[in-house]
Amino acid sequence: MLTQTGCRARLQRLWNAVPAHIEWLLVADPRHVRYLTNFGVQPLSFSQGERGLLLVERNVGTTLLADNFTVRSASGKHFADREVVEPWYDHKHSVINRDHALLRAVRTLEEKLYGRAGAVEAEWLPVGALEILGLDRESHSVAREAADVQKNTGAVDLGTLLKKLRRQKEPDELELLRACMRATEAGHARARELVRPGVSELEIFVEVQAACNRAAGRAVMIYGDFRANSPAQPKAGGLPTDHVLAEGEIFILDYSVVIDGYRSDFTNAMAVGKPSDAQVNLFRVCQEAMAAGEASLKAGVRASAVHAAASAPMRAAGMGPIPHHAGHGIGMAHPEPPILVPESDDVLVAGDVVTLEPGNYLQGVGGVRIEHNYLITETGYERLSNHEIALTRN
Amino acid sequence: MLTQTGCRARLQRLWNAVPAHIEWLLVADPRHVRYLTNFGVQPLSFSQGERGLLLVERNVGTTLLADNFTVRSASGKHFADREVVEPWYDHKHSVINRDHALLRAVRTLEEKLYGRAGAVEAEWLPVGALEILGLDRESHSVAREAADVQKNTGAVDLGTLLKKLRRQKEPDELELLRACMRATEAGHARARELVRPGVSELEIFVEVQAACNRAAGRAVMIYGDFRANSPAQPKAGGLPTDHVLAEGEIFILDYSVVIDGYRSDFTNAMAVGKPSDAQVNLFRVCQEAMAAGEASLKAGVRASAVHAAASAPMRAAGMGPIPHHAGHGIGMAHPEPPILVPESDDVLVAGDVVTLEPGNYLQGVGGVRIEHNYLITETGYERLSNHEIALTRN
Repeated sequence: MLTQTGCRARLQRLWNAVPAHIEWLLVADPRHVRYLTNFGVQPLSFSQGERGLLLVERNVGTTLLADNFTVRSASGKHFADREVVEPWYDHKHSVINRDHALLRAVRTLEEKLYGRAGAVEAEWLPVGALEILGLDRESHSVAREAADVQKNTGAVDLGTLLKKLRRQKEPDELELLRACMRATEAGHARARELVRPGVSELEIFVEVQAACNRAAGRAVMIYGDFRANSPAQPKAGGLPTDHVLAEGEIFILDYSVVIDGYRSDFTNAMAVGKPSDAQVNLFRVCQEAMAAGEASLKAGVRASAVHAAASAPMRAAGMGPIPHHAGHGIGMAHPEPPILVPESDDVLVAGDVVTLEPGNYLQGVGGVRIEHNYLITETGYERLSNHEIALTRN
Repeated sequence: MLTQTGCRARLQRLWNAVPAHIEWLLVADPRHVRYLTNFGVQPLSFSQGERGLLLVERNVGTTLLADNFTVRSASGKHFADREVVEPWYDHKHSVINRDHALLRAVRTLEEKLYGRAGAVEAEWLPVGALEILGLDRESHSVAREAADVQKNTGAVDLGTLLKKLRRQKEPDELELLRACMRATEAGHARARELVRPGVSELEIFVEVQAACNRAAGRAVMIYGDFRANSPAQPKAGGLPTDHVLAEGEIFILDYSVVIDGYRSDFTNAMAVGKPSDAQVNLFRVCQEAMAAGEASLKAGVRASAVHAAASAPMRAAGMGPIPHHAGHGIGMAHPEPPILVPESDDVLVAGDVVTLEPGNYLQGVGGVRIEHNYLITETGYERLSNHEIALTRN
């Protein structure tokens, strides 16, 4: 899980990036509440979809706002300095509108914020919360935030600012990502034992999920692509179906394990039965693309250059460039910057965690995609994922 | 999944409950967007936590607003009449703020709503969306909504209204709940094979989850209590730990299967090894409490009377009343009205789906809770869950 030290470092970076006249921030995206305090609702709980809000005050600290059942459903300890926990359900009285408890918690801030300059996360803060706070609408304007990109009006686009800060991972975030990777590797290893004609996509999913839970030593969430493709239909993605794997298909396992809000994202492509020569060739080209992409990874490199580098072996093999991103940042959402695509404006920075995922989908051959995860450094990269990437078992 | 017929019936009930001067509604709680259109993000996807918004216009129809990746991540077909899908990510250009795509979709409504009376779901609609719409703040006031409960000002507390409507299930909702129940029963059956000294809580969870996925024929989400208690620590709840079950403990399996936003919720308590006489007695009293609670279920009965009825056998056994709710409504969240507690104002209505879950947790004995799910009818109830409730295997 995220640590107190990590949360403090992220808060410090946030304040360093906020204009000096801003005294408080009201953070509302559940990912950002997690990012700054480690407070997050366990998605495998009856509170999935509920949320807390976070007030961050300069030189004062953080205040978590939530109802009592949401706090109870947290996955792990939080590091907010204070909490306003509004009682909602008590096992004695009728309840109907849980959201009103959150708004009651917000009401306790009313006096505190009055007349002080601040910024709210307008993409997630509910209308009801802003009204209760009685804030000057002119000072909390999405339009002004957007204009500020060009005009420097002093308004803060808090949502985008936090998303930018998320790129450079602190040590506790890397630790958490490594935990996701170890569990994901266990699922990949299990899939390699299972993929053969006669097994269903759903059965592979079930066994991969079990392997991830066992390796993590706890209930984790997994999602991604658990689908077989074929020479006739080389593109397939998403959750498993009851399709039974048949000779000549390729099973692409491209999935994430989510722990405490952070996620891995890596892939293998496995032949069902004996692969065709064209499938073996396609797989080899993807491996060359990955090697070429890896060789380009380093802080300061343009994201578009990584796409070009990884695409070069594919072009050389007459398959055109990688038909999707060559990779992307990972962390709390998908996809995150840097986005490794041809028209990308992004530049790699040390602390970025990215995927490389060369793939191609050829009519008459099948689809292949392989993927690793990397931490970008000043001198190159550290590969974080260690699963075996191989088309066949031996 | 929800059907078009069901969505239409729910929309009709919604308009029947909204004051005549209101021409449009902006629905923002993801549960309510699902409720009215079957649009919902698959929680087992990279879009988990993202959302669409829904405009509902009287005599016009429904318009779904979302970014292209959120629409792509829907679990099933939606029945909105129109959609405004704002392109976000295209695998060619950098992106950072996905929420801004949703706000761009909202901007397309600006002209449409200007000068017409409407209501927004203030608990979930983001501040940014309201600002973009340039709506008269006075007309969309949480304070006025709250005041309306007493004063009938014409303001609509849309969130609470929708939550009230959710109580009475349409046939498609019942169908979906039955699908959840069938999968949950499979997990309960598997747990009965597994519970014994030497097995870990996590291992039981893994096997229960696998059984649910296989029975549902798809990847489903499960959450709840997967914990053992003991005479020394009779209360335990939440996700599994690595605790290894020991003779004399009781394993309580109380969990939900979530499919397309709807969920079951039922329980069994299983002795680890041979139960003590006191544990057998506690289990028997819980069964009597359940039978007494069932006998009281019928439309028109006060929720508090159900708690009293189910508690009577416990009181008779000298164990006091049920120390928590005797049950609650189920559907899209937890808990939902009617809330079966001593001070409840709720009255059962035909179409309610509720749990009955008598339990008690006795120092020196252990904890027991058992639970079934029921559809309330004019004449009594239909039991929807069919798992075997038994303390031992024999």
